[in-house]
Order: sequence, then structure tokens, then C-alpha cells
Amino acid sequence: MLVVSSPSGAGKTTLTRRLIASEPDIEMSVSVTTRPRRPNERNRKDYHFISVEAFERMRAAGELLESADVFGNLYGTPRLPVLAALEAGRDVLFDIDWQGTRQIRKAAPGDVASVFILPPTAGELMSRLVRRGQDTIEVIRRRLSGAVGEVEHWDEYDYVIINDDLDAAFEQLRAVLVAERLRVARRRDLDAHVAGLREDLLDRLD
Amino acid sequence: MLVVSSPSGAGKTTLTRRLIASEPDIEMSVSVTTRPRRPNERNRKDYHFISVEAFERMRAAGELLESADVFGNLYGTPRLPVLAALEAGRDVLFDIDWQGTRQIRKAAPGDVASVFILPPTAGELMSRLVRRGQDTIEVIRRRLSGAVGEVEHWDEYDYVIINDDLDAAFEQLRAVLVAERLRVARRRDLDAHVAGLREDLLDRLD
Repeated sequence: MLVVSSPSGAGKTTLTRRLIASEPDIEMSVSVTTRPRRPNERNRKDYHFISVEAFERMRAAGELLESADVFGNLYGTPRLPVLAALEAGRDVLFDIDWQGTRQIRKAAPGDVASVFILPPTAGELMSRLVRRGQDTIEVIRRRLSGAVGEVEHWDEYDYVIINDDLDAAFEQLRAVLVAERLRVARRRDLDAHVAGLREDLLDRLD
Repeated sequence: MLVVSSPSGAGKTTLTRRLIASEPDIEMSVSVTTRPRRPNERNRKDYHFISVEAFERMRAAGELLESADVFGNLYGTPRLPVLAALEAGRDVLFDIDWQGTRQIRKAAPGDVASVFILPPTAGELMSRLVRRGQDTIEVIRRRLSGAVGEVEHWDEYDYVIINDDLDAAFEQLRAVLVAERLRVARRRDLDAHVAGLREDLLDRLD
């Protein structure tokens, strides 16, 4: 499980979409949310848009791996698709905030790598939010105010990337995925490989 | 500090040389050894070739960060150049065996990332040793026998790479270096960056 968090506007969505598009055997976890769908968002692709009642039902039934309240909207990660993907040997990428990250780390310690994306400067973060043109001034103010709270948690993560240049930041994110897949703790499947290698070496020495 | 170990013939030297050549801000730690110089080796570049007496003097004076006895030859890492490089903000790459790796991890826990390179098969390891043509049959037998002991320690490392395809293995080694440099624990220099970012965001919200 690879978790990516950042203040809104730091480039997280672009980076995670590119990672999903370029790397095999990793899929995006699609969150449920009670917030209204934005014009450019597709239901069931970007989010499952559901009612507050449906959300509360899922949460009460233990069907959410994590949930968070962000700007008064509820967000959550359905447990089943994540377990199914992991079971099938695939990695899962999460685009969630620091609250959700804490819950996922608690639910599956040792099996989560987490990355925090920082904007290079506050000015750059603001220009990106203005440039993408999907928010009113009031919403942008709220996002900047949310960013203040979000960046405070950068050091609870395993890795930090400053998204100054998109290509460089992408290569760094990809390196984290590649390296994490090489961790000995995730390669217990190699026990048999090494045992076989040893046997074969001993045979050749006889 | 990045430590790379592998049985002889698994491609470690090729991989580490390529990493040093392609990445900035990382240098190779040059070990001292009491074994005779091979024709293709350069003194002070590949190893510092010294006498057993000089080696013992260095070890007694605490000038070695780690030392190991491999096939009756002594190997060690001079402490000073490593400290100087780290002090200057440069990373140091070590090509040492599992005994040395244990000592370095003990001397500097938290500041070491370690990688074990495995050959794809015993047959491939043997062909590589034969193909490089620098050893007698007797030495090759000794290397294979050393490999048996070395591969047993693969799971004491942080990462494992199977060197099946050299380019792929190199990209994986590079990813480990890139990712390790992004670890939050190594980026305390960002405390000031984040504090400044927060201040600036709050100013813009006023």
C-alpha cells in the first residue's frame, strides 16, 4: 500500500494518475465521498459519490478502512477492493489526507509506505489553485487554510517530495515505489529462491 | 551511507561503479586490504593495498569503521574519509560483505541503507566467474563456497535485488538511492522550509 498525501494544489492527483498509467500491478483506491461531484469528475472512477446516510451505514458496518472529515465533507476508503487487490498481489495507491494515513498505518503497520508532497512555495501553491480555475476565491481560501493544517503533518510520513518540477517529482515518486517493492520485508517469496540457490551451489561444489 | 553486498560474481562491482559514474554527490569508500593486487586493480582507486602489520596498526588505533576476514585476507574501511564525505553532505557507497555490513549498521544505526544483490541462479553465478577469466578453477571453487555463506545473510539487508538483467538491476539500485534520499528522517533540513511555507500561507490568508 502506497499512500500519497499533500495539500490540495501540490500536484498529487497529476502525480498519482501518472504513476498508475505508467506502472503495472498498481491500482488506485477509489474513495467514497459525500461531497458534490465536480464537472470534471467521473463517478466510480475518481470517487464513489454517495449520500451521508450511505456513508454512515458503511462506516458503522466496518466497511471503511479509513474515513475523514475534510471541510465538512466525509471521505472514506472501502475495505473490500483494497483487500482483493492485495490478495491478488497488486499494490494499491491511496490519495488521502493525514487523518486517513494515520488510520491506514494503524490498520496495517509495516505494509504501508507513505509519501508527502510539498509545494515549493506558498505563492506557487496559490497560483496553481488559481490557474486550475475550478474553485471560487472562497474555496481557494479554504484550501489554503486547509494546507496550513496539512503541511504540519509532513514528518509523520516515510518520504517527502518537493514538487518543484513535475517530471523530477514523478521520477522520485516512481523511485519510492520501485524501492519499496525491493524491501526484504516484502520479499519473503525469495526464501525458496535463496534456499534453491544454496542447494545448487553446494551440488556444484561436490 | 549505502551498503551493497553480494556473493562475488553477482555483478556488484559493475553496478556500484555505474552508480558512482551516473549519480552526483555519492562517492565510493575505498577499502584497505592485505590481499595481493590483481592485474586490473589500481592502488588507492580500487583498494589501498597494505601489509598485515599496517592493517593491524590501523585496526588497533580505531581507524577502521569495519573490518572482516574473507578467505584469509583482511579487509577494512578507513573511518576518516567516510566521516569527511558525510560531513560535506555527500553519500558514501560501500562494497563490503555481510560481516562489515553488520559492523557499519551497528556503528551508525539509522544512517545506513543496505542492499543485497542476488544472482538469478547458481549456474549463472558460475558462468560469470568463469567468463570474467581472472580466477583459477581453485579460486572459483572458493568463491562459490564463499557465496554459500554470503547468500545466507540476504535477509539482514533492507533491500534485495536479483541481478538477472544488468540494466534493470541498475535502475533498481538507483531507485533505492533516490528513495532513501527522500526519507523524512534524512530531510530534517526541511523543517525550516515547512515552517516558512506555513507562515507564508497564513500571511496570504490575512
